[in-house]
This record gives sequence, structure tokens and C-alpha cells, in this order.
Amino acid sequence: MRLAELSERSGVSTATIKYYLRERLLPPGRRITATQSEYDEEHLRRLRLVRALIQVGRIPVGTAREVLAAVEDDSRDQLSRLGTAVEALPHGPEPDESDPSTAVGRRTATALMRQAGWRFSLGIADEFPAFRMLVGAIAALHRLGYACDLPHLLPYAQQAAQLAVADLDLVEEFTTPAEQVEAAVALTVLYEPVLLSLRRLAEAEESNRRFGGGS
Amino acid sequence: MRLAELSERSGVSTATIKYYLRERLLPPGRRITATQSEYDEEHLRRLRLVRALIQVGRIPVGTAREVLAAVEDDSRDQLSRLGTAVEALPHGPEPDESDPSTAVGRRTATALMRQAGWRFSLGIADEFPAFRMLVGAIAALHRLGYACDLPHLLPYAQQAAQLAVADLDLVEEFTTPAEQVEAAVALTVLYEPVLLSLRRLAEAEESNRRFGGGS
Repeated sequence: MRLAELSERSGVSTATIKYYLRERLLPPGRRITATQSEYDEEHLRRLRLVRALIQVGRIPVGTAREVLAAVEDDSRDQLSRLGTAVEALPHGPEPDESDPSTAVGRRTATALMRQAGWRFSLGIADEFPAFRMLVGAIAALHRLGYACDLPHLLPYAQQAAQLAVADLDLVEEFTTPAEQVEAAVALTVLYEPVLLSLRRLAEAEESNRRFGGGS
Repeated sequence: MRLAELSERSGVSTATIKYYLRERLLPPGRRITATQSEYDEEHLRRLRLVRALIQVGRIPVGTAREVLAAVEDDSRDQLSRLGTAVEALPHGPEPDESDPSTAVGRRTATALMRQAGWRFSLGIADEFPAFRMLVGAIAALHRLGYACDLPHLLPYAQQAAQLAVADLDLVEEFTTPAEQVEAAVALTVLYEPVLLSLRRLAEAEESNRRFGGGS
């Protein structure tokens, strides 16, 4: 398809598509004349992912480019591609090593992984951005004096394990390895607001049940 | 206690505490001389909440003031105070009503609440910021062509319901209604990064299980 059709089918303006092409967020089309290129279904799919990252996830262009490089790198096996792509997503500020609560956070996070039986994550631990994000989050709870010991955290780890099953079921609906990696990245970003809003709605229901004498 | 002790016990500098006092994020102390005031445990607790909102949640000062006003408003019953305080938290951009996907998002969100049996949220629906956040999140999935129908979303609602039980159990560890409202706000903010990082860690475990032939 030509640029105009790619724009129409994706709902992204031609100016924005040209910007993504210049920024190498989208691979170039197949040149057919000096001024025209031909795009295919893969471009359409990639454009969808770029919009998920940039417009919904509000991820900086440079970071998005790193994520996409990992998505494209088919020299690696599926697991390492998946991992690298998701690890390249933003994961908040790094834990503050000068804060004594960070050591507590790291100790608790490690014990939590062990208790949950997450041996894969334990094996990479501090190299894993999501682990450092967890360390920082537990450190903040500790610093502010809120409960953040194992018995409090374990139910959240157990819920996360069940969420991950739903997440990977979605990813496995896609058939090719490339599509699966793209879907893993897009769904990680797009389902975060779904999850956070559902948690707040469910909290309202549960509060109503406990405090409202309600239905 | 004096300002210096409040600073020491909270780990917040006296300059920052004075700023919070000026911005009315912290109620004034009991004046004891022309230049000195006395602060109590309630100030310490409030300071903890202000730090959770501003430093961890990165919530603007004006929004934090609104949240605190709801926390303080003891003319209302516990359920409505809890609700107002959590609703005042940021909940992302409003759904774009000019986008046809928003109508799909609203229809799907409504059907999802009904299916999950969340009658309280259904009753307030669009007045509820978390509901509008969900509408926008489903609309983004739909617009980008990712699966966002009821069978895909329902497992997330069921997980959210279980998370809410853990959340409210934490809140109920606090004894007075004022402390419970404060805890609900702080824990909503502080547990979001815990939850999102645990989800990414659990996804890595589940990917390893499915694609890595791993443990």
C-alpha cells in the first residue's frame, strides 16, 4: 500500500508517519519510484506498536527505538527477545542506594521472589529493571513506615503470577515469534492502565462491602 | 515535639516542612511562643502521607491539597471520605469523546462491571474517575486493534477483585477512621509500582516457563 493508505488504515497522519520513518521507528518502505514507497501489513502492525509506546505509554522516542531494536533482533531466541524488549520499557527512577531503606527493599524483594518460587528473576535480580523497580517501591513503603513485610507482599506476588498467565495467554494468541514480541510489549504498556483502573474500581466495591453496608 | 524533632523523625528537612505548612498540606502546629510551635503524632502521620503523594506519587501540590481536604472532611461517612480521597488522585487523561473507540470502551467497561457484579461502580459509572480511566484504556486497546473484549478483560477484573481484598485488609489494620482514609490513599499510590513491577517479574517467570523450557 502507499503512504496515504497506510495513514488511512492506521489512523495516523502522513506527517506523523514520515516523522516515525525519519526517526527510524518504522522501517523504510520498498522504494518503487523516486518519490513513492510501498508499505505492507508489517508496517501497519509496527505503526500500531509505535503508537502504543509513544501515544499511550508516553515513552520517549529514544527509548521506543531501543524497544523496537530488541523486537527486531531475530538473532536471539524468543525468550531473550521478549525479555530485552520489555526490559527496555521505562521502569521508573532507580532505587536510591544512599537511602538505608533501599537495603531493606532489596532484602525483602529477594525474599519475596524466593518465597514466590520465581527462580528465573532471582537469577538475574539486580540486572533486571523490574526487580530494581520493586526494590525502590518496597523501599518507599519502608521509608514511609507502611507495612511492607513478606506476609503483606506475598498476596500481591500471587496475584501477579495469575495476571501473568492471562498476559501470556494474550501474547500466545499471536502466531509468529515477531508478532508475539510486539504484542508482549504493546500489551504490557496498554494493560497497565486497565489493571490500575480496575484495581481502583474493585477497591470501591470492596470498601462499599466493608464500610457501606452495601450490596 | 518541635519542628527540629518532627524533621528528624520524619526524615523531611525543616525547609520542606515549612513549605508544606505554607502550602497548607500540613495543618499548623500549636503555637507556643511567637516563633515556636508544637507538633504531634498526627503531624508526623500526615507528613508521611504528603511525602507518599508528592515524592513517590509525583502528584502536583494542588491535587495533593484536594486529596488531603477529603481525608480531613469528617462530616462525611467513612465510605464517602474514602471514595472522595481516592477519586481526587490523578487518573490519567480523560477519554477522547471525539474518538469512536471511546464509545466502544464505555460499552465494554459497562458490560465488564455488570459481568463482574460491581454494582456500586456501575451506579456511579461516568462520575467515577477510575471508570473513565478504564474507558480510555479499553478505547486505546480497541483503537490499536488489540483484543479488548469481555472474555479477555474478565480475568483482569477478577484479579483486581482479589487485589482489592488484600488492599482493604491492609487499610483495616489501621484503627481510627482518619488513619484508615490516610492509609487507603497512601497505599493506593505506594502499591501501584509494587504491583506493576511484580507483574513484569511474573511475566518473565511465565515466559521462561512457556518459551524457555525453564524451571
